Amino acid sequence: VHILLIAHCSRQESSNIEIRALTNRLRQLQSPFAGIECAFLEIAEPSIPEGLQNLIANNVSEILVLPYFLSAGRHVLVDIPKLVAQVQLEAPNVVIRIVPYLGAAEQIDQLLMYQALSMLKSI
Amino acid sequence: VHILLIAHCSRQESSNIEIRALTNRLRQLQSPFAGIECAFLEIAEPSIPEGLQNLIANNVSEILVLPYFLSAGRHVLVDIPKLVAQVQLEAPNVVIRIVPYLGAAEQIDQLLMYQALSMLKSI
Repeated sequence: VHILLIAHCSRQESSNIEIRALTNRLRQLQSPFAGIECAFLEIAEPSIPEGLQNLIANNVSEILVLPYFLSAGRHVLVDIPKLVAQVQLEAPNVVIRIVPYLGAAEQIDQLLMYQALSMLKSI
Repeated sequence: VHILLIAHCSRQESSNIEIRALTNRLRQLQSPFAGIECAFLEIAEPSIPEGLQNLIANNVSEILVLPYFLSAGRHVLVDIPKLVAQVQLEAPNVVIRIVPYLGAAEQIDQLLMYQALSMLKSI
């Protein structure tokens, strides 16, 4: 099983570098995943279809699409599922699943509180 | 010390409801914060200046601005600091600090991996 991490893409190139660095850090965590790649919804490369097609071209047969998004806006609800569905149609034998977006994780609340508390302690 | 949670705002009203629900859940966590409010960078209300001004009008003297953003794009690097600085100019006696954006939290890596692993287990 491979992970394709999906980020929005920013016009600030530093922000896209951040996503590639995050992808590298995820690769270094112990996990059952055979590979972790990233793709971008807009502008930056690879696009979501390209990211999926690259994996499929390398004979990957199971892909978890992991949306690095905080809110269930149009990108999460419509755009990502649509792009994934198009590639799925062309590659019916590949299993592609979309993981709930990051903002749906219960632990986000604690993490936000932790960020605020860290700031308070550093004063 | 009060928290002002800042989100981008989505054209999907459900996504803004999500932020208000998150704000409510944060209020229910045990914390040293006297109050937690939210504000939006675009479209939805209150705006960031309004959110800050509402707190200041209620005699809040210390505010932590907590950006609910994953990437250090223009919003995090430029827009939020600029809006905060404008309010700070008008209220020099209020201490307003910007907490590092959520995506800067080290635990994000583990949380992403956890989301992917949860999906794998649920199959």
